[in-house]
Amino acid sequence: MKNIKIELLHSTPLSICSHAIRTCWNSFNKSDNGGQKDLELIDRIGNKMKHESVKNHIHFTFYIEGITTKTLLALTRHDVGVEFSVMSTRYTTASSVKSGKAKYTESKSEFINKCLQDINNMVNEAVSKNIANDEISLILPQSWQYDLTCTMSLTAVQHFLKLRTTSHAHWDIRDLAYELYNAIPNEYKYLLDDCIIEKEGDIK
Amino acid sequence: MKNIKIELLHSTPLSICSHAIRTCWNSFNKSDNGGQKDLELIDRIGNKMKHESVKNHIHFTFYIEGITTKTLLALTRHDVGVEFSVMSTRYTTASSVKSGKAKYTESKSEFINKCLQDINNMVNEAVSKNIANDEISLILPQSWQYDLTCTMSLTAVQHFLKLRTTSHAHWDIRDLAYELYNAIPNEYKYLLDDCIIEKEGDIK
Amino acid sequence: MKNIKIELLHSTPLSICSHAIRTCWNSFNKSDNGGQKDLELIDRIGNKMKHESVKNHIHFTFYIEGITTKTLLALTRHDVGVEFSVMSTRYTTASSVKSGKAKYTESKSEFINKCLQDINNMVNEAVSKNIANDEISLILPQSWQYDLTCTMSLTAVQHFLKLRTTSHAHWDIRDLAYELYNAIPNEYKYLLDDCIIEKEGDIK
Amino acid sequence: MKNIKIELLHSTPLSICSHAIRTCWNSFNKSDNGGQKDLELIDRIGNKMKHESVKNHIHFTFYIEGITTKTLLALTRHDVGVEFSVMSTRYTTASSVKSGKAKYTESKSEFINKCLQDINNMVNEAVSKNIANDEISLILPQSWQYDLTCTMSLTAVQHFLKLRTTSHAHWDIRDLAYELYNAIPNEYKYLLDDCIIEKEGDIK
Repeated sequence: MKNIKIELLHSTPLSICSHAIRTCWNSFNKSDNGGQKDLELIDRIGNKMKHESVKNHIHFTFYIEGITTKTLLALTRHDVGVEFSVMSTRYTTASSVKSGKAKYTESKSEFINKCLQDINNMVNEAVSKNIANDEISLILPQSWQYDLTCTMSLTAVQHFLKLRTTSHAHWDIRDLAYELYNAIPNEYKYLLDDCIIEKEGDIK
Repeated sequence: MKNIKIELLHSTPLSICSHAIRTCWNSFNKSDNGGQKDLELIDRIGNKMKHESVKNHIHFTFYIEGITTKTLLALTRHDVGVEFSVMSTRYTTASSVKSGKAKYTESKSEFINKCLQDINNMVNEAVSKNIANDEISLILPQSWQYDLTCTMSLTAVQHFLKLRTTSHAHWDIRDLAYELYNAIPNEYKYLLDDCIIEKEGDIK
Repeated sequence: MKNIKIELLHSTPLSICSHAIRTCWNSFNKSDNGGQKDLELIDRIGNKMKHESVKNHIHFTFYIEGITTKTLLALTRHDVGVEFSVMSTRYTTASSVKSGKAKYTESKSEFINKCLQDINNMVNEAVSKNIANDEISLILPQSWQYDLTCTMSLTAVQHFLKLRTTSHAHWDIRDLAYELYNAIPNEYKYLLDDCIIEKEGDIK
Repeated sequence: MKNIKIELLHSTPLSICSHAIRTCWNSFNKSDNGGQKDLELIDRIGNKMKHESVKNHIHFTFYIEGITTKTLLALTRHDVGVEFSVMSTRYTTASSVKSGKAKYTESKSEFINKCLQDINNMVNEAVSKNIANDEISLILPQSWQYDLTCTMSLTAVQHFLKLRTTSHAHWDIRDLAYELYNAIPNEYKYLLDDCIIEKEGDIK
């Protein structure tokens, strides 16, 4: 069962990127209106020739549900080409707990999972005591789940995938990387495939 | 006759911004699906309450033709939330001159205009002598026109309009500011109107 | 007793900023070599006339010990003009616990403090069981303390102080704001005083 | 005779970078106080292991005199980790011309140089006619020289050197790259040497 759920809210058409490239060389007469020639141009100039900036015209906006605090901390370090709007514990903790929406991600360790159950009970009790959200948040564990709306440039997505799809990455942020990849429409995938360092199924 | 011509190539729907805001408060149940309540939310949180970052989910991509080198220099200083792909003089100067596409913006001063004609003749002669574009570019005047594809966040557009729609700004970059505003669809204008410091017609 | 401890590791001399400003107007002949005229110039151009970019030549590097995870999450959202190098739970959790360096910040609520003691015992037990740091981190509470080395531009410091020195801010990030201000040498304070919205002693 | 003259106004000590790195691993007990071990750490983590962000704690501020408009246009495209304060033609053109400070960079082409002399005469005449600087700037050629104060992170310097020290780069921006390298103190050079793609003397 997956913890992380991602919905793509918006993506910029690839033709915007090929238009940007053709502006530099004034080569609009060579365009095939978003066909094979334009798509190859993006890969050649933006990836192979490393003119990274042309890929910054393309943005993806994701609605991401269920990443851990731990992963959020790692994600916020990717600050170039990334914008976040994150669920605020100050405004949502008590109401999320009461409505049953609040969740945490389970560990691979049984001992840690038992601890998480105990901590979750503490959180529930604190909410029932009407303690202020700002104080309750001090006991929320790093497995506590956040939702966020996140806009990333194509360059930022590529960078994230390269760093976070290796067996060296923690499984929670790795799951986020694979889910981001899966949420992106197939027409963009030819620009991303080389950024998947290890495939999802290949990591034990 | 206007020198600058702008085509809006793409814009992110406003509903992406209200979705981002509702993520922070988990207030999706109050949304009216992009209706009046959602539109007011963007203005209240993003403008009045100054949570500038929520406006960074909205991007506009413009194809801008005919800005002067002088204005390009000023525009590139707006580097937060702005991405450029600019016509390269290295690759386009000779071919643009030969095809008649190359242009410069006229001055308000007759003396300067006479100079510009002479300089333009020099450029034409240099092209006919097959001098390398990189050397020819050393005589291109700052009124020489560039085309670019430019992606700006909503925040960046607002910042640009505030700085460049005053009588203190040079007329060429002021024209760019008004044309950017004009190129943006009406549904976004309620977020921009307070950024127009002096109206186009009001400046002599 | 304060949780947060800040040491200023480095700061750029103010004369760098006045030199940058004088470059724009080529007014070096008016400089008094970092004296009163140069200091006033920085305040006039950088603050009153809002040429924010000239303040980006000045950087402060702080070694910050003892901020909560909660505050770290808020701090990392200040991503313009700020660079972080943060203590990694992956590499330090077990060794910090064993050496007695690991700490958490106490709440204003007794109930929450009792919970934090219980959670701290869980963390100690997990370490003694040799559970991997990456799994242990899932139970670390948001009051868990982090150390970081943080470089901020003068503009970023001003922005942070303005947002975080109000009674609306949570006490933990407010403490960080006041400690940052205190860690900055007096000669820079004339540029910062207007950014302190409410004074430390004035907030109950 | 060189056109570009660079003075290093300030640089952050390397020990700030090793301190930042040791924060992540809490390995301060392994430091040799800025000695060989700390210097190697920066190269290993910041360069070989590609944790680029640790190098963003180090900044260099340069006072650069005499780059062409053409090169300034290219330089302003390096916007990540770079801050500029540039001589304003609006405020300085007439006074620079009158004081004899105004200069342009000569071309490798004799024809272009003859044109530049003619254009320079036009600029002088326009100044003597008291035409407004904003209009005069429209005839300034792209070889017109600018001065600027520029602050770059270590990462940004490395990126600039990699792109601009190849025979593919125009000679004017290549000169800037070599002069930047020369202006940096020797103790930083071990981090930069791999970024010099072709050595200055090796390019004909």
